[in-house]
Amino acid sequence: MPGSVAHKLIASHLVEGDMIPGHEVGIAIDQTLTQDATGTLVMQELEALGLDRARTGVSVQYVDHNLLQADERNAEDHVFLESACRRYGIWFSRAGNGVSHPTHMQRFGVPGATMVGSDSHTCAAGSLGMLAVGVGGLEAALAIAGRPLYIRMPQIWGVRLTGQLPEWCSAKDVILEMLRRHSVKGGLNRIIEYHGPGLDTLNAMDRHVIANMGAELGATTTVFPADEAVRSFLRAERREHDFVPLTADADASYDVTEEIDLSTIEPLIAKPSAPDNVVPVREVAGTEISQVVVGSSANPGLRDFLVAASIVAGRQIPERVSFDVNPTSRQILTDMTRLGGTVDLINSGARLHQTGCLGCIGMGQAPAVGQNSLRTFPRNFPGRSGTPEDSVWLCSPETAAASALTGEITEPREAARRFDLDHPEIELPDHSSVNTTMLSPPPAPTEPPAELVKGPNISSLPEFPPLPDSVEAPVLLKVGDDVSTDEISPAGAVALPYRSNVPQLAEFTFVRIDDSYPRRASEIADSTGHFVVGGQNYGQGSSREHAAITPRFLGLRAVVAKSFARIHWQNLANFGILALEFGDPSDYDRIDSGDMLSLANLTETLPASAEITMRNTTKGQTYRLRHTLSARQVDSVLAGGQIPLLARAAQS
Amino acid sequence: MPGSVAHKLIASHLVEGDMIPGHEVGIAIDQTLTQDATGTLVMQELEALGLDRARTGVSVQYVDHNLLQADERNAEDHVFLESACRRYGIWFSRAGNGVSHPTHMQRFGVPGATMVGSDSHTCAAGSLGMLAVGVGGLEAALAIAGRPLYIRMPQIWGVRLTGQLPEWCSAKDVILEMLRRHSVKGGLNRIIEYHGPGLDTLNAMDRHVIANMGAELGATTTVFPADEAVRSFLRAERREHDFVPLTADADASYDVTEEIDLSTIEPLIAKPSAPDNVVPVREVAGTEISQVVVGSSANPGLRDFLVAASIVAGRQIPERVSFDVNPTSRQILTDMTRLGGTVDLINSGARLHQTGCLGCIGMGQAPAVGQNSLRTFPRNFPGRSGTPEDSVWLCSPETAAASALTGEITEPREAARRFDLDHPEIELPDHSSVNTTMLSPPPAPTEPPAELVKGPNISSLPEFPPLPDSVEAPVLLKVGDDVSTDEISPAGAVALPYRSNVPQLAEFTFVRIDDSYPRRASEIADSTGHFVVGGQNYGQGSSREHAAITPRFLGLRAVVAKSFARIHWQNLANFGILALEFGDPSDYDRIDSGDMLSLANLTETLPASAEITMRNTTKGQTYRLRHTLSARQVDSVLAGGQIPLLARAAQS
Repeated sequence: MPGSVAHKLIASHLVEGDMIPGHEVGIAIDQTLTQDATGTLVMQELEALGLDRARTGVSVQYVDHNLLQADERNAEDHVFLESACRRYGIWFSRAGNGVSHPTHMQRFGVPGATMVGSDSHTCAAGSLGMLAVGVGGLEAALAIAGRPLYIRMPQIWGVRLTGQLPEWCSAKDVILEMLRRHSVKGGLNRIIEYHGPGLDTLNAMDRHVIANMGAELGATTTVFPADEAVRSFLRAERREHDFVPLTADADASYDVTEEIDLSTIEPLIAKPSAPDNVVPVREVAGTEISQVVVGSSANPGLRDFLVAASIVAGRQIPERVSFDVNPTSRQILTDMTRLGGTVDLINSGARLHQTGCLGCIGMGQAPAVGQNSLRTFPRNFPGRSGTPEDSVWLCSPETAAASALTGEITEPREAARRFDLDHPEIELPDHSSVNTTMLSPPPAPTEPPAELVKGPNISSLPEFPPLPDSVEAPVLLKVGDDVSTDEISPAGAVALPYRSNVPQLAEFTFVRIDDSYPRRASEIADSTGHFVVGGQNYGQGSSREHAAITPRFLGLRAVVAKSFARIHWQNLANFGILALEFGDPSDYDRIDSGDMLSLANLTETLPASAEITMRNTTKGQTYRLRHTLSARQVDSVLAGGQIPLLARAAQS
Repeated sequence: MPGSVAHKLIASHLVEGDMIPGHEVGIAIDQTLTQDATGTLVMQELEALGLDRARTGVSVQYVDHNLLQADERNAEDHVFLESACRRYGIWFSRAGNGVSHPTHMQRFGVPGATMVGSDSHTCAAGSLGMLAVGVGGLEAALAIAGRPLYIRMPQIWGVRLTGQLPEWCSAKDVILEMLRRHSVKGGLNRIIEYHGPGLDTLNAMDRHVIANMGAELGATTTVFPADEAVRSFLRAERREHDFVPLTADADASYDVTEEIDLSTIEPLIAKPSAPDNVVPVREVAGTEISQVVVGSSANPGLRDFLVAASIVAGRQIPERVSFDVNPTSRQILTDMTRLGGTVDLINSGARLHQTGCLGCIGMGQAPAVGQNSLRTFPRNFPGRSGTPEDSVWLCSPETAAASALTGEITEPREAARRFDLDHPEIELPDHSSVNTTMLSPPPAPTEPPAELVKGPNISSLPEFPPLPDSVEAPVLLKVGDDVSTDEISPAGAVALPYRSNVPQLAEFTFVRIDDSYPRRASEIADSTGHFVVGGQNYGQGSSREHAAITPRFLGLRAVVAKSFARIHWQNLANFGILALEFGDPSDYDRIDSGDMLSLANLTETLPASAEITMRNTTKGQTYRLRHTLSARQVDSVLAGGQIPLLARAAQS
């Protein structure tokens, strides 16, 4: 569908394939973004690939996820990442500088550029007119090594915005409305492109909020045009010279269309424990809460914090509510301090945390069991907060601050009436407090390569053998719909410190669903291996490739599911795990945990056909399955993953 | 020694005994302080004691130690503590309000009052002319229940200060000088009383720094007079009405005397891994560092942060240094923000953490193995940072900030030369940003008692049986001098969440010294039990009674050591563990781990005599030992601890 922003972005970077939805295309990548939770593996992969120096225009490694430093492993990771950046010629954003997505947008975002990032919210950069795609770590590593991104060409989903948001509503309510309408599967294999006159009422950071949580819709990415709002943003960041206009043609058309009249939006909230469990705030008003958290890449802007500060200014948070504030970057913290927001927040009773992702990724601020926590975060998957039986709600800063004031879920307009609040009219400063000194540039190419500094907790990548020609193995686990990568390989303060150590991290695989899985899997890892059976949208959420690597380490050979989330599906192929979809979804119900499944002649069958037959030898049944792997991906799966494949190619 | 401040404080509160050094005295207690790491046990003890309502003038429960909330247990503790405060009529200082010691000083400290606190740094309140003693949790619980504090009357150690500190030196250097001169054992069984003309140059918060780290000298407590400096402090806190002068008589005399000419002090630093490992900074200048942390109750004041901010203002911390700032209270954070210090710190590259103890108690900011970390903290015991093989140095904010700027240990005067720094002349505001809304007062006595809210991780106290009349049991562990309670029962992010759950926490007992101890001990806990043999100053450091309860839970019956640190010695008696000292310290060398030791006729012997004989049946040797328990403590040990003793008394 020519003429759209998404189409122009892909067309200008196309190196392989045809832009027909469903066909594999190769896209040249200008920039990469990695964060610490996934980045240590990326650096280990660069090492395994034998890379000399990054071949992208800009590659940046952020340290934002794991900042608690509850033991030495955390600091070791930081030292390793910093050495790897010097080794491979990558920018290094130090712990304390800021959350990757808003920081990247402020310092590196360029309209018209492409980016991959080993973080599912990489799509936030679409707010500046970039094509930014969240991928597994290995694909980020391959992009750093100069290789194109291969994806199936998505449909372009044009969402026309009209009207203007009412008072007390903001961008978060727009993306919650999208989730209310379309669920976490609504964006699968689509690029969402916002357009229309309503755009003029949303500044670039508002668009970031909407683009960021496109990940929750399962979309490949989200794009906005690069218009005057983007120019203003870059001007405030003292980078107006980086502005390039990029807008859709007047006659642009879209594969799928949609319209949102912003003036009809009301304050919305996602109930526990899924981002698409969205209802109007008024429907759940009065629910008692014990925690409110403001921050994260889903509401990262100065505006978001100042709105919250303005609502609580001069008032007090009730005794039983913990009001936690996560500033997203030191630049934003500096600005909110200069403008008085920090003091207003602290005086109201806020706990001001260090700048970073923190609670959003379960690194701190875990709520008590059975207590409601309201967050401006993008996700509320079960247990992601660090508390196994958590009860996390997602909402706008307006709703969060209004509820913090009352100690119960409160419509911001109701709080305005009760406390006689004026609608916060936030005037952003002409220029942000730009400070780049915690962003270390890569060393000059002329400098001798630095050594990698590997502490005792930094392992090497395990080596995985090729997929056997036939697999006969039991189903060790059968799971339902929408299982997230958080459930497959949890982050959080207990597991995340091991993210650079696959054998250790594997002990946490699937434990939120079945804590006997790691033991049962490892007992047969070297003999038969095993299957996992899944429902719809298997592997949604975070891009972490640990969710592929750790079950693979424990002997997972194939996942049979109704459908797969895009990034995880890619990660499975990258690490030699066969992802198969049911031809008839009702076959899902016929398989039980413990059944022996059998796949034969894989070497011959997989390249030849998308169809494949699987025997259930326990039940004496046969199922029709299909794979949607490209020829390139089939090679990867058969070889045991991309790294053995590339190693083999290098040897031959 | 009449006429001293210490003597007046004790005399005015004496309810039992004679004020002769070494004799047990009973002291009426006006105030108590508990913090979350020890306070959950205190509340469980109040429950076990069947208390109706606190009988002190002021009792305050602070939440400052464990704020990371890496999982649900942390938030559960906060909920439990808040409910216990409402149940027992105790002030509640919420998470985020501030570190107990400076906050208590600002809001509740009253010259002439007595206080016990279940935190070893409770002595910091001596800065205001209080008699404030760190104790185990049970003694804090008994004080809340209105019972006196029983201690052996200490010697009064008069330290006369003359002269004035040179530029670039501050109060921290004074207490480091005391530690350099006298070691961590120098203050045992002493109250340190500072006096002399040099006092006029130290404001109340400077004195807090010195009083706080009196704990590191092993002193019972530290006192300063309540003079004009204290009046000014209370005025700035808008509490001048609480000022009562309390000064030593002109002819006051002391049991021990000492003099420090402040003008001879130079910047000092404690090397890893003991607070008395003190050398001049210049002797270790140039040592590369990877972390600097400013904060904690050992340098809590607004001045300390503003000094650091002033040194780094307009400059940048080098790439490889993590510069962590822990504000001590939201009041101080507000003031430092209003005065511009916060922005200066952030702009230099500081990571601003939430207000609390954090890294000081190993809750976050753990350094990498083998990397030097400079901290303005009070302690650097091995592993306390959260990193097993850590390398932590203790210094003033001046030295910390100067070193942060260069990335190596740097004398502040050298930094001043190199960076052309003016000496920071900090003018404190006339009035602090007093804000008491995170301090919840106790409910009125007329209100019906609240229910205790116990989450799944809040256990009850285990019940311990009486000490058998004879004990024949093996030495499971033999340790050296100065073993700290951090080594006996570690805090840190892994263990601390279990502090309300003795059976779980017991799994961490002594693991820093011998990780087989919990298993070996529990195997024989129900049969023979076991002994531990220690060197000098056994149980120094933190007041946590977990260091008595968890080995007791694992079957510890008696510790035989060369000498004991005061609080831990008291805790052992409170929980029914016999603390015995070698009559001849060289006998220590004759006992090996694994030897069978035998004590007989304890019921008869202990009350009758301070002397006791122990057989080593493995070696066929006999040792003369002594105990220094009061009759009251003997009863406690024989009964299995204070709680069974009090329960028995209540039944009869």
